[in-house]
Amino acid sequence: MPMPTAPAPRPASAPVAALDIGGTKIAGALVDADGRILARTRRPTPAGEDGESVFGAVGAVLDALATSPAWAVAEAVGIGSAGPVDAARGTVSPVNVPGWRGFPLVERVREHAGGRPVTLVGDGVAMTAAEHWLGAARGHADALGLVVSTGVGGGLVLGGRLHPGPTGNAGHIGHLSVDLDGAPCACGGRGCVERLASGPHIARHALDGGWRPGPDGDASAAAVAEAARAGHPAAVAAFERAARALAAGIAATAHLVEVDIAVIGGGVAGAGEVLFAPLRCALADYATLSFARGLTVVPAATGADAGLLGAAAAARAPR
Amino acid sequence: MPMPTAPAPRPASAPVAALDIGGTKIAGALVDADGRILARTRRPTPAGEDGESVFGAVGAVLDALATSPAWAVAEAVGIGSAGPVDAARGTVSPVNVPGWRGFPLVERVREHAGGRPVTLVGDGVAMTAAEHWLGAARGHADALGLVVSTGVGGGLVLGGRLHPGPTGNAGHIGHLSVDLDGAPCACGGRGCVERLASGPHIARHALDGGWRPGPDGDASAAAVAEAARAGHPAAVAAFERAARALAAGIAATAHLVEVDIAVIGGGVAGAGEVLFAPLRCALADYATLSFARGLTVVPAATGADAGLLGAAAAARAPR
Repeated sequence: MPMPTAPAPRPASAPVAALDIGGTKIAGALVDADGRILARTRRPTPAGEDGESVFGAVGAVLDALATSPAWAVAEAVGIGSAGPVDAARGTVSPVNVPGWRGFPLVERVREHAGGRPVTLVGDGVAMTAAEHWLGAARGHADALGLVVSTGVGGGLVLGGRLHPGPTGNAGHIGHLSVDLDGAPCACGGRGCVERLASGPHIARHALDGGWRPGPDGDASAAAVAEAARAGHPAAVAAFERAARALAAGIAATAHLVEVDIAVIGGGVAGAGEVLFAPLRCALADYATLSFARGLTVVPAATGADAGLLGAAAAARAPR
Repeated sequence: MPMPTAPAPRPASAPVAALDIGGTKIAGALVDADGRILARTRRPTPAGEDGESVFGAVGAVLDALATSPAWAVAEAVGIGSAGPVDAARGTVSPVNVPGWRGFPLVERVREHAGGRPVTLVGDGVAMTAAEHWLGAARGHADALGLVVSTGVGGGLVLGGRLHPGPTGNAGHIGHLSVDLDGAPCACGGRGCVERLASGPHIARHALDGGWRPGPDGDASAAAVAEAARAGHPAAVAAFERAARALAAGIAATAHLVEVDIAVIGGGVAGAGEVLFAPLRCALADYATLSFARGLTVVPAATGADAGLLGAAAAARAPR
């Protein structure tokens, strides 16, 4: 009998299939070795339905991709999913998809995709992989990616490689406690970065400080950002508070694993300098050790396709 | 001309030389592949003298080791040094050794040790390497080591390997801010783990709460620990406060990089259950995410030789 041999390296030009699975939509794409999207599709996530129905939408996305000529040469599938994920077991339990609790997504996708190898990471890890491959963290061997939105997620690149951790959840910066006696967080902890810096918490902080939405009733963090740009003190204070929490979390990461760049994506990053200016100031207060002083913070560059590109990057990453 | 080739792997049995450099003493040893110490020596650190005089003590330690028959076959030198260190540049600037600021320790040791390869890491990284090789973190692919003493330091093992970071300082858990509006820390930050959990800060917290030293005047954290064991409320509260800060920092590390064990050494760890019992309770409050729930906290096992064994482990670590 022939001895088992190492798998042949993938041709550099072979595309991979990418899935970006969230609580509202399931996106899929075929992505080539240069990060070009050769085909794409999406379905709404039937988040309130049972697990098989949700997987039906994933299957429909894969079936649509399979109509592309590039599918035949796609050599692997990468999945970035809303968490928690468990890459060690190949399962997902997204908070906003109650029908999936320990759902064996890796095995089901592998079966549906003709036995291709499947890599699963959390959505924050996927975004970070995208920024390292094609975005603002390109060329940085040690980087933190953050997604600041309804929640706060993230991912890490260490020593030039994606660091998903054993279960695919590493980089969960939203649940670092930066205020150990602070307000209870939905995770069960206290004073988490997410509790201070997520979009909904920025809006709530501004409302508590006396800011009020305009005639359109928009009470989102984007509306608070607009008010902050116009100089409304409570809106400014809400972003300053979020910036300090993010700075403490980013500095903690730099002190722990020596990243030299933090890349911030997600809706709240769209606030621009209203967030980034106080964040840079606060970073100087917390990133105090000599080896962390070169740390920079920049906006993400891969935009709405970060999840798909990151899932593709994860599928290609050496493990 | 012959092409450059990869260096031959070190014989598994070859010893390495290890240096453990602190503000009060410089220890050296020859350590074999099983962690046995074949020869050892030490000198006081002439911490108040100029840089060359301090290096003179390092040279004397190396010279003493060179009288051992094992020196001839020692294939590398590992250094664990009080920080900050800069492993990328090969320099050290220990806070308590003012004569060394950017001192080129790696180059000087290499010259003194006949050109042997030299690996430099911070002392917290060295302790972690020792615990991973021979101590309580053995067999754990992802681990955090902490040294809780006059300061709070640490190190990381990720994916089965020591993770010193680009400059050899990764794992600096003492300067994670867990109280972003908290008391100023010596590092320039606020509410750092060290500011809440170091021995001197535990003692100060107990004094502020009304604890008083006994007739021997001992106001150390060890004396506070004794009082806490006897049930003195201010002493108990001081350890509970330190435990919460350590728990928040350890949980942050688990959420960021997915360690499943934290090993605590240093003088304050000698307090035993007075520290560890509230620490385990507090950890349940902060390590809330599914992938962090298996996290355990245990005392270090390598004792007073942790620095030397860790320097030896760092010299052997694949990079």
